[in-house]
Amino acid sequence: MHFDLELSLAVLGRSPATLGALLDGLEEPWVRGTEGPDTFSPFDVVGHLIDGEETDWIPRARIMLAQGPDLRFEPYDRFRHRARNAARSLESLLAEFTRLRTDNLDLLRSWRLTARELDLPGEHPSLGRVTLRQLLATWVVHDLGHLAQVARVMAKQYQGEVGPWVPFLPVLTDHIVPRS
Amino acid sequence: MHFDLELSLAVLGRSPATLGALLDGLEEPWVRGTEGPDTFSPFDVVGHLIDGEETDWIPRARIMLAQGPDLRFEPYDRFRHRARNAARSLESLLAEFTRLRTDNLDLLRSWRLTARELDLPGEHPSLGRVTLRQLLATWVVHDLGHLAQVARVMAKQYQGEVGPWVPFLPVLTDHIVPRS
Repeated sequence: MHFDLELSLAVLGRSPATLGALLDGLEEPWVRGTEGPDTFSPFDVVGHLIDGEETDWIPRARIMLAQGPDLRFEPYDRFRHRARNAARSLESLLAEFTRLRTDNLDLLRSWRLTARELDLPGEHPSLGRVTLRQLLATWVVHDLGHLAQVARVMAKQYQGEVGPWVPFLPVLTDHIVPRS
Repeated sequence: MHFDLELSLAVLGRSPATLGALLDGLEEPWVRGTEGPDTFSPFDVVGHLIDGEETDWIPRARIMLAQGPDLRFEPYDRFRHRARNAARSLESLLAEFTRLRTDNLDLLRSWRLTARELDLPGEHPSLGRVTLRQLLATWVVHDLGHLAQVARVMAKQYQGEVGPWVPFLPVLTDHIVPRS
Protein backbone atom coordinates (compact mmCIF):
# COMPACT_ATOMS: atom_id res chain seq x y z
CA MET A 1 0.00 0.00 0.00
CA HIS A 2 1.38 3.39 -0.99
CA PHE A 3 1.06 6.49 1.14
CA ASP A 4 -2.21 8.32 0.64
CA LEU A 5 -3.05 11.46 2.59
CA GLU A 6 -6.80 10.81 2.80
CA LEU A 7 -6.31 7.18 3.87
CA SER A 8 -3.83 8.37 6.49
CA LEU A 9 -6.22 10.99 7.85
CA ALA A 10 -8.91 8.30 8.04
CA VAL A 11 -6.82 6.23 10.46
CA LEU A 12 -5.41 9.16 12.45
CA GLY A 13 -8.92 10.51 12.98
CA ARG A 14 -10.11 7.25 14.52
CA SER A 15 -7.50 6.82 17.25
CA PRO A 16 -9.16 8.95 19.95
CA ALA A 17 -12.51 7.18 19.65
CA THR A 18 -10.85 3.76 19.45
CA LEU A 19 -8.83 4.35 22.61
CA GLY A 20 -11.89 5.88 24.26
CA ALA A 21 -14.01 2.81 23.47
CA LEU A 22 -11.32 0.54 24.88
CA LEU A 23 -10.24 2.54 27.94
CA ASP A 24 -12.62 5.33 29.02
CA GLY A 25 -14.05 4.34 32.41
CA LEU A 26 -12.19 1.02 32.48
CA GLU A 27 -11.03 -0.22 35.88
CA GLU A 28 -7.55 0.76 37.14
CA PRO A 29 -5.89 -2.70 37.03
CA TRP A 30 -6.33 -2.73 33.23
CA VAL A 31 -5.38 0.91 32.78
CA ARG A 32 -2.28 0.98 34.99
CA GLY A 33 -0.72 -2.42 34.25
CA THR A 34 2.58 -2.55 32.33
CA GLU A 35 4.67 -5.34 30.80
CA GLY A 36 7.70 -4.65 32.98
CA PRO A 37 9.92 -1.83 34.29
CA ASP A 38 10.20 1.21 32.02
CA THR A 39 7.35 0.05 29.78
CA PHE A 40 4.12 1.93 29.16
CA SER A 41 0.74 1.24 30.73
CA PRO A 42 -2.36 2.14 28.68
CA PHE A 43 -2.47 5.37 30.75
CA ASP A 44 1.13 6.12 29.75
CA VAL A 45 0.36 5.45 26.07
CA VAL A 46 -2.38 8.09 26.01
CA GLY A 47 0.06 10.56 27.60
CA HIS A 48 2.72 9.64 25.04
CA LEU A 49 0.26 10.22 22.19
CA ILE A 50 -0.56 13.66 23.64
CA ASP A 51 3.18 14.43 23.70
CA GLY A 52 3.29 13.48 20.03
CA GLU A 53 0.49 15.94 19.23
CA GLU A 54 2.25 18.76 21.08
CA THR A 55 5.93 18.17 20.29
CA ASP A 56 6.41 15.73 17.42
CA TRP A 57 4.29 15.39 14.28
CA ILE A 58 3.01 18.88 13.56
CA PRO A 59 6.10 20.75 14.84
CA ARG A 60 8.28 18.56 12.61
CA ALA A 61 5.94 19.00 9.63
CA ARG A 62 6.17 22.78 10.11
CA ILE A 63 9.98 22.64 9.99
CA MET A 64 9.81 20.71 6.71
CA LEU A 65 7.22 22.99 5.14
CA ALA A 66 9.15 26.14 6.13
CA GLN A 67 12.41 24.84 4.54
CA GLY A 68 14.48 27.28 6.57
CA PRO A 69 18.26 27.04 6.96
CA ASP A 70 18.02 24.44 9.76
CA LEU A 71 15.90 21.40 8.91
CA ARG A 72 16.89 19.50 12.06
CA PHE A 73 14.05 18.27 14.34
CA GLU A 74 14.11 18.67 18.11
CA PRO A 75 14.77 15.30 19.76
CA TYR A 76 11.57 13.72 21.03
CA ASP A 77 11.23 13.00 24.77
CA ARG A 78 9.55 9.61 25.19
CA PHE A 79 9.02 10.23 28.91
CA ARG A 80 7.72 13.84 28.93
CA HIS A 81 4.25 12.54 29.89
CA ARG A 82 5.39 11.00 33.18
CA ALA A 83 5.83 14.19 35.18
CA ARG A 84 3.26 16.10 33.10
CA ASN A 85 0.39 13.71 33.83
CA ALA A 86 1.16 12.51 37.36
CA ALA A 87 -1.99 14.08 38.81
CA ARG A 88 -4.26 13.57 35.80
CA SER A 89 -7.13 11.14 35.24
CA LEU A 90 -7.26 8.91 32.17
CA GLU A 91 -10.60 10.47 31.24
CA SER A 92 -9.11 13.95 31.12
CA LEU A 93 -6.16 12.70 29.05
CA LEU A 94 -8.48 11.00 26.56
CA ALA A 95 -10.46 14.23 26.22
CA GLU A 96 -7.26 16.23 25.74
CA PHE A 97 -5.94 13.78 23.14
CA THR A 98 -9.22 13.99 21.24
CA ARG A 99 -9.09 17.80 21.19
CA LEU A 100 -5.42 18.01 20.17
CA ARG A 101 -5.79 15.38 17.46
CA THR A 102 -8.88 17.02 16.02
CA ASP A 103 -7.14 20.40 15.85
CA ASN A 104 -3.96 18.91 14.34
CA LEU A 105 -5.86 17.03 11.63
CA ASP A 106 -7.87 20.17 10.81
CA LEU A 107 -4.58 22.02 10.42
CA LEU A 108 -3.04 19.25 8.32
CA ARG A 109 -6.09 19.25 6.04
CA SER A 110 -5.95 23.04 5.73
CA TRP A 111 -2.43 22.80 4.26
CA ARG A 112 -3.78 20.94 1.17
CA LEU A 113 -0.40 19.29 0.74
CA THR A 114 0.80 18.65 -2.81
CA ALA A 115 2.93 15.71 -3.94
CA ARG A 116 5.87 18.12 -4.18
CA GLU A 117 5.40 19.25 -0.58
CA LEU A 118 5.15 15.64 0.61
CA ASP A 119 8.65 15.15 -0.81
CA LEU A 120 10.13 18.01 1.25
CA PRO A 121 13.01 16.92 3.48
CA GLY A 122 13.78 17.28 7.15
CA GLU A 123 16.66 16.11 9.30
CA HIS A 124 15.89 13.57 12.04
CA PRO A 125 18.38 13.88 14.93
CA SER A 126 19.42 10.22 14.71
CA LEU A 127 17.90 8.84 11.47
CA GLY A 128 19.08 11.59 9.12
CA ARG A 129 17.16 12.78 6.08
CA VAL A 130 13.44 11.97 5.98
CA THR A 131 10.54 13.32 3.91
CA LEU A 132 7.24 14.82 5.01
CA ARG A 133 5.49 11.82 3.40
CA GLN A 134 7.54 9.47 5.57
CA LEU A 135 6.78 11.55 8.68
CA LEU A 136 3.03 11.34 8.05
CA ALA A 137 3.17 7.59 7.32
CA THR A 138 5.14 7.17 10.55
CA TRP A 139 2.46 9.08 12.46
CA VAL A 140 -0.13 6.51 11.28
CA VAL A 141 2.07 3.51 12.10
CA HIS A 142 2.99 5.03 15.48
CA ASP A 143 -0.71 5.31 16.42
CA LEU A 144 -1.40 1.72 15.39
CA GLY A 145 1.72 0.42 17.13
CA HIS A 146 0.64 2.00 20.38
CA LEU A 147 -2.91 0.68 19.99
CA ALA A 148 -1.41 -2.80 19.54
CA GLN A 149 0.73 -2.13 22.62
CA VAL A 150 -2.29 -1.16 24.75
CA ALA A 151 -4.09 -4.37 23.77
CA ARG A 152 -0.97 -6.47 24.38
CA VAL A 153 -0.22 -4.91 27.78
CA MET A 154 -3.84 -5.47 28.86
CA ALA A 155 -3.70 -9.08 27.65
CA LYS A 156 -0.53 -9.73 29.65
CA GLN A 157 -2.29 -8.81 32.90
CA TYR A 158 -4.03 -12.22 32.53
CA GLN A 159 -0.88 -14.11 31.55
CA GLY A 160 -1.04 -16.26 34.69
CA GLU A 161 -4.79 -16.92 34.38
CA VAL A 162 -5.15 -18.79 31.08
CA GLY A 163 -3.58 -22.08 32.21
CA PRO A 164 -2.41 -24.27 29.31
CA TRP A 165 -3.71 -21.85 26.62
CA VAL A 166 -0.50 -19.74 26.55
CA PRO A 167 0.93 -21.27 23.32
CA PHE A 168 -2.34 -20.51 21.49
CA LEU A 169 -2.19 -16.83 22.53
CA PRO A 170 0.90 -15.32 20.90
CA VAL A 171 0.03 -11.85 22.26
CA LEU A 172 1.16 -13.11 25.69
CA THR A 173 4.68 -13.89 24.50
CA ASP A 174 5.21 -10.91 22.16
CA HIS A 175 7.80 -8.44 23.45
CA ILE A 176 8.99 -10.63 26.33
CA VAL A 177 11.97 -8.33 26.06
CA PRO A 178 10.14 -4.99 25.79
CA ARG A 179 10.65 -3.30 22.43
CA SER A 180 8.40 -0.26 22.68
CA MET B 1 -3.61 -9.63 38.16
CA HIS B 2 -5.92 -12.46 39.20
CA PHE B 3 -9.02 -13.47 37.27
CA ASP B 4 -12.07 -11.43 38.16
CA LEU B 5 -15.40 -12.00 36.45
CA GLU B 6 -16.52 -8.35 36.55
CA LEU B 7 -13.17 -7.09 35.24
CA SER B 8 -13.34 -9.69 32.48
CA LEU B 9 -16.86 -8.69 31.49
CA ALA B 10 -15.69 -5.05 31.37
CA VAL B 11 -13.14 -5.84 28.68
CA LEU B 12 -15.28 -8.32 26.74
CA GLY B 13 -18.10 -5.79 26.58
CA ARG B 14 -15.85 -3.16 24.97
CA SER B 15 -14.55 -5.15 22.02
CA PRO B 16 -17.44 -4.52 19.59
CA ALA B 17 -17.33 -0.72 20.08
CA THR B 18 -13.52 -0.65 19.96
CA LEU B 19 -13.42 -2.56 16.67
CA GLY B 20 -16.29 -0.43 15.39
CA ALA B 21 -14.46 2.81 16.18
CA LEU B 22 -11.36 1.52 14.42
CA LEU B 23 -12.92 -0.18 11.39
CA ASP B 24 -16.55 0.71 10.68
CA GLY B 25 -16.63 2.63 7.38
CA LEU B 26 -12.85 2.48 6.97
CA GLU B 27 -11.51 2.18 3.43
CA GLU B 28 -10.93 -1.28 1.92
CA PRO B 29 -7.10 -1.19 1.71
CA TRP B 30 -6.93 -0.99 5.51
CA VAL B 31 -9.71 -3.51 6.07
CA ARG B 32 -8.57 -6.19 3.60
CA GLY B 33 -4.79 -6.08 4.01
CA THR B 34 -3.02 -9.04 5.64
CA GLU B 35 0.52 -9.73 6.84
CA GLY B 36 1.09 -12.62 4.43
CA PRO B 37 -0.52 -15.81 3.08
CA ASP B 38 -2.91 -17.55 5.48
CA THR B 39 -2.97 -14.61 7.89
CA PHE B 40 -6.04 -12.62 8.90
CA SER B 41 -7.08 -9.22 7.60
CA PRO B 42 -9.08 -6.97 9.96
CA PHE B 43 -12.19 -8.23 8.08
CA ASP B 44 -11.15 -11.83 8.80
CA VAL B 45 -10.59 -11.05 12.48
CA VAL B 46 -14.15 -9.80 12.92
CA GLY B 47 -15.41 -13.00 11.26
CA HIS B 48 -13.16 -15.08 13.52
CA LEU B 49 -14.53 -13.33 16.61
CA ILE B 50 -18.08 -14.09 15.43
CA ASP B 51 -17.11 -17.75 15.08
CA GLY B 52 -15.88 -17.62 18.67
CA GLU B 53 -19.26 -16.28 19.84
CA GLU B 54 -21.12 -19.03 18.00
CA THR B 55 -18.90 -22.07 18.41
CA ASP B 56 -16.27 -21.54 21.10
CA TRP B 57 -16.64 -19.68 24.39
CA ILE B 58 -20.26 -20.15 25.41
CA PRO B 59 -20.64 -23.69 23.97
CA ARG B 60 -17.52 -24.75 25.89
CA ALA B 61 -18.69 -23.03 29.08
CA ARG B 62 -21.99 -24.93 28.78
CA ILE B 63 -20.15 -28.27 28.56
CA MET B 64 -18.22 -27.41 31.72
CA LEU B 65 -21.27 -26.23 33.64
CA ALA B 66 -23.29 -29.32 32.63
CA GLN B 67 -20.53 -31.70 33.87
CA GLY B 68 -21.94 -34.55 31.80
CA PRO B 69 -20.10 -37.79 31.06
CA ASP B 70 -18.11 -36.25 28.16
CA LEU B 71 -16.29 -33.02 29.04
CA ARG B 72 -14.43 -32.87 25.73
CA PHE B 73 -14.80 -29.66 23.65
CA GLU B 74 -15.48 -29.69 19.91
CA PRO B 75 -12.31 -28.66 18.03
CA TYR B 76 -12.47 -25.02 16.96
CA ASP B 77 -12.32 -24.22 13.23
CA ARG B 78 -10.09 -21.14 12.78
CA PHE B 79 -11.21 -20.75 9.16
CA ARG B 80 -14.98 -21.23 9.45
CA HIS B 81 -15.48 -17.51 8.72
CA ARG B 82 -13.88 -17.65 5.27
CA ALA B 83 -16.68 -19.37 3.41
CA ARG B 84 -19.35 -18.07 5.79
CA ASN B 85 -18.58 -14.38 5.19
CA ALA B 86 -17.49 -14.35 1.55
CA ALA B 87 -20.42 -12.17 0.48
CA ARG B 88 -20.72 -10.09 3.66
CA SER B 89 -19.82 -6.46 4.33
CA LEU B 90 -17.62 -5.50 7.26
CA GLU B 91 -20.42 -3.28 8.57
CA SER B 92 -22.84 -6.20 8.75
CA LEU B 93 -20.21 -8.37 10.48
CA LEU B 94 -19.53 -5.67 13.07
CA ALA B 95 -23.27 -5.39 13.76
CA GLU B 96 -23.56 -9.17 14.05
CA PHE B 97 -20.57 -9.38 16.39
CA THR B 98 -22.06 -6.66 18.59
CA ARG B 99 -25.39 -8.50 18.82
CA LEU B 100 -23.84 -11.91 19.53
CA ARG B 101 -21.42 -10.54 22.11
CA THR B 102 -24.16 -8.61 23.91
CA ASP B 103 -26.36 -11.70 24.10
CA ASN B 104 -23.47 -13.91 25.24
CA LEU B 105 -22.42 -11.54 28.02
CA ASP B 106 -26.04 -11.20 29.16
CA LEU B 107 -26.16 -14.99 29.35
CA LEU B 108 -22.83 -15.22 31.16
CA ARG B 109 -23.99 -12.62 33.71
CA SER B 110 -27.27 -14.49 34.21
CA TRP B 111 -25.36 -17.57 35.34
CA ARG B 112 -24.02 -15.71 38.44
CA LEU B 113 -21.01 -18.01 38.48
CA THR B 114 -19.59 -18.96 41.87
CA ALA B 115 -15.92 -19.57 42.65
CA ARG B 116 -16.72 -23.31 42.76
CA GLU B 117 -18.26 -23.22 39.29
CA LEU B 118 -15.28 -21.28 37.93
CA ASP B 119 -13.14 -24.26 39.02
CA LEU B 120 -15.20 -26.76 37.00
CA PRO B 121 -13.12 -28.71 34.47
CA GLY B 122 -13.43 -29.35 30.76
CA GLU B 123 -11.28 -31.28 28.30
CA HIS B 124 -9.63 -29.29 25.53
CA PRO B 125 -9.03 -31.48 22.44
CA SER B 126 -5.30 -30.77 22.37
CA LEU B 127 -4.46 -28.96 25.66
CA GLY B 128 -6.16 -31.37 28.05
CA ARG B 129 -7.81 -30.37 31.29
CA VAL B 130 -8.76 -26.71 31.67
CA THR B 131 -11.08 -24.84 34.05
CA LEU B 132 -13.99 -22.53 33.33
CA ARG B 133 -11.97 -19.71 34.92
CA GLN B 134 -9.14 -20.34 32.46
CA LEU B 135 -11.62 -20.45 29.55
CA LEU B 136 -13.04 -17.05 30.48
CA ALA B 137 -9.58 -15.52 31.01
CA THR B 138 -8.61 -16.91 27.59
CA TRP B 139 -11.68 -15.28 26.02
CA VAL B 140 -10.44 -11.88 27.30
CA VAL B 141 -6.86 -12.43 26.13
CA HIS B 142 -8.10 -13.76 22.77
CA ASP B 143 -10.09 -10.55 22.17
CA LEU B 144 -7.12 -8.37 23.07
CA GLY B 145 -4.71 -10.45 20.99
CA HIS B 146 -6.90 -10.03 17.94
CA LEU B 147 -7.27 -6.30 18.57
CA ALA B 148 -3.47 -6.07 18.69
CA GLN B 149 -3.37 -8.12 15.47
CA VAL B 150 -5.77 -5.76 13.68
CA ALA B 151 -3.65 -2.75 14.63
CA ARG B 152 -0.43 -4.55 13.65
CA VAL B 153 -1.78 -5.73 10.29
CA MET B 154 -2.99 -2.21 9.49
CA ALA B 155 0.39 -0.74 10.48
CA LYS B 156 2.20 -3.17 8.19
CA GLN B 157 0.32 -1.85 5.15
CA TYR B 158 2.60 1.23 5.50
CA GLN B 159 5.78 -0.76 6.09
CA GLY B 160 7.35 0.54 2.88
CA GLU B 161 6.28 4.15 3.46
CA VAL B 162 8.06 5.13 6.68
CA GLY B 163 11.60 5.29 5.25
CA PRO B 164 14.32 5.09 7.92
CA TRP B 165 11.83 5.00 10.83
CA VAL B 166 11.39 1.18 10.74
CA PRO B 167 13.67 0.42 13.74
CA PHE B 168 11.69 2.91 15.89
CA LEU B 169 8.39 1.16 15.05
CA PRO B 170 8.58 -2.37 16.47
CA VAL B 171 5.00 -3.10 15.39
CA LEU B 172 6.33 -3.35 11.81
CA THR B 173 8.70 -6.18 12.65
CA ASP B 174 6.50 -8.14 15.08
CA HIS B 175 5.36 -11.50 13.69
CA ILE B 176 7.59 -11.38 10.61
CA VAL B 177 6.89 -15.10 10.71
CA PRO B 178 3.14 -14.97 11.33
CA ARG B 179 2.15 -16.41 14.71
CA SER B 180 -1.58 -15.78 14.85
